[in-house]
Amino acid sequence: MSSNYGENIRLTIFGQSHSPAIGMTLEGLPAGCKIDEDQLIRFLKRRAPGQNSYSTQRREADAPEFLCGVKNGFTCGTPLTAIIRNTDQHSKDYSNLAVLPRPGHADYTAQVKYFGYQDYAGGGHFSGRLTAPLCIAGGVILQQLKKEGISILTRISSIADVCDEGELNAPTSEKAFPTVSDEMGQKMIERIAEAKSDGDSVGGVIECKILGLPAGLGDPMFDGMEQRIASIVFSIPAVKGLEFGLGFECARITGSENNDEFAVEGGRIVTKTNNCGGILGGITNGMPLTFKAAFKPTPSIGKAQQSVNLTSSVEEELIIKGRHDPCIVPRAVPCIEAAAAIAVYDAMLSRKKEIK
Amino acid sequence: MSSNYGENIRLTIFGQSHSPAIGMTLEGLPAGCKIDEDQLIRFLKRRAPGQNSYSTQRREADAPEFLCGVKNGFTCGTPLTAIIRNTDQHSKDYSNLAVLPRPGHADYTAQVKYFGYQDYAGGGHFSGRLTAPLCIAGGVILQQLKKEGISILTRISSIADVCDEGELNAPTSEKAFPTVSDEMGQKMIERIAEAKSDGDSVGGVIECKILGLPAGLGDPMFDGMEQRIASIVFSIPAVKGLEFGLGFECARITGSENNDEFAVEGGRIVTKTNNCGGILGGITNGMPLTFKAAFKPTPSIGKAQQSVNLTSSVEEELIIKGRHDPCIVPRAVPCIEAAAAIAVYDAMLSRKKEIK
Amino acid sequence: MSSNYGENIRLTIFGQSHSPAIGMTLEGLPAGCKIDEDQLIRFLKRRAPGQNSYSTQRREADAPEFLCGVKNGFTCGTPLTAIIRNTDQHSKDYSNLAVLPRPGHADYTAQVKYFGYQDYAGGGHFSGRLTAPLCIAGGVILQQLKKEGISILTRISSIADVCDEGELNAPTSEKAFPTVSDEMGQKMIERIAEAKSDGDSVGGVIECKILGLPAGLGDPMFDGMEQRIASIVFSIPAVKGLEFGLGFECARITGSENNDEFAVEGGRIVTKTNNCGGILGGITNGMPLTFKAAFKPTPSIGKAQQSVNLTSSVEEELIIKGRHDPCIVPRAVPCIEAAAAIAVYDAMLSRKKEIK
Amino acid sequence: MSSNYGENIRLTIFGQSHSPAIGMTLEGLPAGCKIDEDQLIRFLKRRAPGQNSYSTQRREADAPEFLCGVKNGFTCGTPLTAIIRNTDQHSKDYSNLAVLPRPGHADYTAQVKYFGYQDYAGGGHFSGRLTAPLCIAGGVILQQLKKEGISILTRISSIADVCDEGELNAPTSEKAFPTVSDEMGQKMIERIAEAKSDGDSVGGVIECKILGLPAGLGDPMFDGMEQRIASIVFSIPAVKGLEFGLGFECARITGSENNDEFAVEGGRIVTKTNNCGGILGGITNGMPLTFKAAFKPTPSIGKAQQSVNLTSSVEEELIIKGRHDPCIVPRAVPCIEAAAAIAVYDAMLSRKKEIK
Repeated sequence: MSSNYGENIRLTIFGQSHSPAIGMTLEGLPAGCKIDEDQLIRFLKRRAPGQNSYSTQRREADAPEFLCGVKNGFTCGTPLTAIIRNTDQHSKDYSNLAVLPRPGHADYTAQVKYFGYQDYAGGGHFSGRLTAPLCIAGGVILQQLKKEGISILTRISSIADVCDEGELNAPTSEKAFPTVSDEMGQKMIERIAEAKSDGDSVGGVIECKILGLPAGLGDPMFDGMEQRIASIVFSIPAVKGLEFGLGFECARITGSENNDEFAVEGGRIVTKTNNCGGILGGITNGMPLTFKAAFKPTPSIGKAQQSVNLTSSVEEELIIKGRHDPCIVPRAVPCIEAAAAIAVYDAMLSRKKEIK
Repeated sequence: MSSNYGENIRLTIFGQSHSPAIGMTLEGLPAGCKIDEDQLIRFLKRRAPGQNSYSTQRREADAPEFLCGVKNGFTCGTPLTAIIRNTDQHSKDYSNLAVLPRPGHADYTAQVKYFGYQDYAGGGHFSGRLTAPLCIAGGVILQQLKKEGISILTRISSIADVCDEGELNAPTSEKAFPTVSDEMGQKMIERIAEAKSDGDSVGGVIECKILGLPAGLGDPMFDGMEQRIASIVFSIPAVKGLEFGLGFECARITGSENNDEFAVEGGRIVTKTNNCGGILGGITNGMPLTFKAAFKPTPSIGKAQQSVNLTSSVEEELIIKGRHDPCIVPRAVPCIEAAAAIAVYDAMLSRKKEIK
Repeated sequence: MSSNYGENIRLTIFGQSHSPAIGMTLEGLPAGCKIDEDQLIRFLKRRAPGQNSYSTQRREADAPEFLCGVKNGFTCGTPLTAIIRNTDQHSKDYSNLAVLPRPGHADYTAQVKYFGYQDYAGGGHFSGRLTAPLCIAGGVILQQLKKEGISILTRISSIADVCDEGELNAPTSEKAFPTVSDEMGQKMIERIAEAKSDGDSVGGVIECKILGLPAGLGDPMFDGMEQRIASIVFSIPAVKGLEFGLGFECARITGSENNDEFAVEGGRIVTKTNNCGGILGGITNGMPLTFKAAFKPTPSIGKAQQSVNLTSSVEEELIIKGRHDPCIVPRAVPCIEAAAAIAVYDAMLSRKKEIK
Repeated sequence: MSSNYGENIRLTIFGQSHSPAIGMTLEGLPAGCKIDEDQLIRFLKRRAPGQNSYSTQRREADAPEFLCGVKNGFTCGTPLTAIIRNTDQHSKDYSNLAVLPRPGHADYTAQVKYFGYQDYAGGGHFSGRLTAPLCIAGGVILQQLKKEGISILTRISSIADVCDEGELNAPTSEKAFPTVSDEMGQKMIERIAEAKSDGDSVGGVIECKILGLPAGLGDPMFDGMEQRIASIVFSIPAVKGLEFGLGFECARITGSENNDEFAVEGGRIVTKTNNCGGILGGITNGMPLTFKAAFKPTPSIGKAQQSVNLTSSVEEELIIKGRHDPCIVPRAVPCIEAAAAIAVYDAMLSRKKEIK
């Protein structure tokens, strides 16, 4: 079912960009999980729009209202629902999208799928805005993971042709721009500014590294850690590629180069390298779980593009109005953390059932 | 649940490499679907081992026995189950894997996950052999898709550093080696032979292109075509990366380069390019759906590798015995077709529910 | 997952009796379904409290607010979420339930299950109030079924030892008391009044008859119409029994008495009797689908009862305060219709996939 | 999905009465569960046909062959599949059912549902024979429950109008006829013999009592113990009614009579009565979980019945040939145990996830 995720938790995300509200229901958190709302709001702020020159100027408080499932700051065992009201809508900006679909957007596919009944304003259910409820769920879960000693590191590893340098070994979340090398981060900011001034946009790649995972999470066949992560990471709009460990690079080298030999370190079994990204046979091996997600450039650009008028079936030039991010990658970083957290947490609940 | 796939169909895959049998149950095919067993056996033969110098010498008939769900050559509406007996097992070859896990394999993670109760022989449930039942399901479904005018093209787009040339516009399945350019295919065969003579292995990338899909398949959020395909493609052992359309490449270019402009062609709305791989917002747009999957090199290599004795926790050298593919990519090609077919078919069933 | 229902639709119900709001998300309605909100509010009013002498005096508007999924009165294809604010809460009434569980209620089991973190106020997630979102979903779906020629008849067939008379062949929903025989309805009202004046309560049985169903809905094994209906009817608090057609009565007669012989009527295959309740092998046979649900008496009674103090583990007398229905059966009638509608609609979506 | 059951386990049942084999796949048992095959075969024997005068004379070994998932007598963590070959088929007996459906059977609904492609021989997927794989799964699980101190008592509480006497406090499974009162059991046998000599059949009611359950199993709303049990009990052919605790009887009494008051017994919280059948708000309260299932009389009777020729649409007299049980209730007793065991085990796995 499209808007549901999870085997042991059940995350339901609802709302359209310009509907009265968006929100999420999360079921499956045990009773008694503490929710720190202040910390959650700080987390959500990292994906909020309007904070700097490279993101859309739409401004919203985005403080979630919890409708149920929490009492006195602790989960009460039943579904946790939170909503965010949509308040700063400029629906008129989008009025021509019903007939003239934007290249690279879901306007056309939504029109076909929903027979013209789709809510096209602001991208409807396809809007990046729907990652806000994803981040509510992920933010709540990140707080639980932390108590289990699990943390999630992320960084932008590239924007267009500008690549970050160095290893991802510490959080970048407190930085103004989430790269390991601040110098390269500055170059990425410049690359985004350049695209913006061209009326164009750029994409990039986000790296994620999950630390503190026990070995034994994930399953063979259809519920490996790869699938569990893929099923949620691809729900973030604009993700077009996903790789674990060396990923596509491992297809270019030999088995003797790629295999991660086992070793003993501090009495614990480890691997000398981590080309597999911490996953063997779909199951965590106790090393950091690493993956990279490729984001396409924001499809909304200022340049004129060719579209087709859906009423007349005639080709027509389209000029997109409205407020848009020249690069959504920076705001997508907490979304990747949220997605990773949710996937890992669900796998951890599965693991509880396997222990007799 | 690990061994189940599908929203409208339900595919269950069972068996271990050396258990009495492996098999699959497929539920959700409408009654009255014709199953051509001869055609199915020809399809399965493409993934069967022992056919040439670059695959394992394990030889098995691999003709499935249908236990139920089919009558007089047509599905009868209830679960379709087929099994393949495991007959050519050399269990002794694997006797040391219980204590000395192979790098790059699931031996160690299986040991942790199943507390020592795993069936380690031949890789157990993690064996590439489990793709045989995947191909039974996929082969049956490919026959149904064909009747709807849908076909699936594949090719090996690279082996190690050898890349195929040309566009994938015609089937390669009848070729001795599934590349567009036979010259590059020959070089790939040589590259595999080189790895084999080195006691090493290589990986590669498979490209898949699905033709004839209607627009409107797939869903927003968690059940986009990307997720549907990822959930099954990552179940093929050794897949470590997946990208749709331009994939990671689109993260390097600009929005104006990447966006696929709309046009009218023969009265039909098309896009002038297909960088998005036929998917917008998780939903097919009527263009070919394209993706690439990266396969790591076969982890079983002849070279000595370091492992850790799980009984003594002492590092130990491992020499892998037994029969292995120096490159599993050629045999994985029909698996990719099977996986793609299953994902697409399931999405098509979803689509039926959306039409009032 | 506890708060989710459906194979093709996905209904999520959330909220506690005294949380800020309760609500539901319904996914899987095709785009373009008309929602008549006035009609929906009239339907919801049938289960609303405070309307007469035999229901609780809690008064709420209970007009749902649609947060998303509907545009200009039509579903837009993505999740439909509606909430009802909880406004008339008397939380203090319930303050002693945390330590002194009410017999027949879920206070004790909630305490055990949620380790003391449950939201005990007003019964929390276990409150009959959660049937309001069920009725939102059911009310919306009833409107869709009507367009397909499907209607759902209900009646109270008994209250305590007072049984209705006559056959259920016409709606009772417009009546002040939903029985076929108004005389017996009046006796039931008197029986409820008697229980109320005794500080006691009574239960009853509701009969449901679904007309206009095509043959072929439902599945063998685990998704027969019986299971589909049971899974949702037992979610209505107080239901303790469910039977289809003759139900328990058919266990007392012979096969020759119970079997429904086939006949031809107006060119259509029918059965001469309908002892099977329109279901054979889990699948509808084209006759009316009939079932009965048994409701226990409201557990909240005015009489003193023995409970156990959960803090001290000492037996203690409990006097329940607060507002309660002496009989919830009348208000449960639309809930049964909602439940039946949802189950049938989901089965109809399944059916679409089976037709090639 | 029709042939799948379970939230944490996944039980898939496949096969038709006269297909090469029937079987089941059970996923979700932890690795390391011991399976005692001898004990399992003894359990299966209780539902096997041909053992006495009141069951069908079809004789089969019914010893399951495990294809995978078990190694050296212990589960290995991956799917457990077992099959039973169909060997004693008399397909010719059923040849006329394709056109002349038997009253009370699924012949007609299968024909409609599967558009004539159904496997009608022996009832196909609707045959009571499919309860054999249910009993394999249930038998394996019963062995695991026993280790947790959980046992399941059953008895036939009535056959036609003959009711058992006494309380169900001890196993009846070793008895020749599973009643508490052997005298009433003898009368039931006579009642069945009478039906048989009349060319007729009778139904009955089975009572089930699950001992040793912890409080806290099951969930509010859609996954209460009632729904979990209903979803599997109604999969046993001929079940037409289900009630928990007092069930339909509680609808006839008052709240003060029906409520189970709490008490302290041996330092443990108990209820003084168990009218609720050990379930409050869908959740076990630590008392025995009790339910009753009503079975209709076997629809296959020797008497002439009216049917309709599906080819000509003309009413026609049907005389059923073949071997049939005049009463399937005795053979259904272990099926009820299997169903209860599976439902309880799945709920116990859910419970593991709730404990932090």
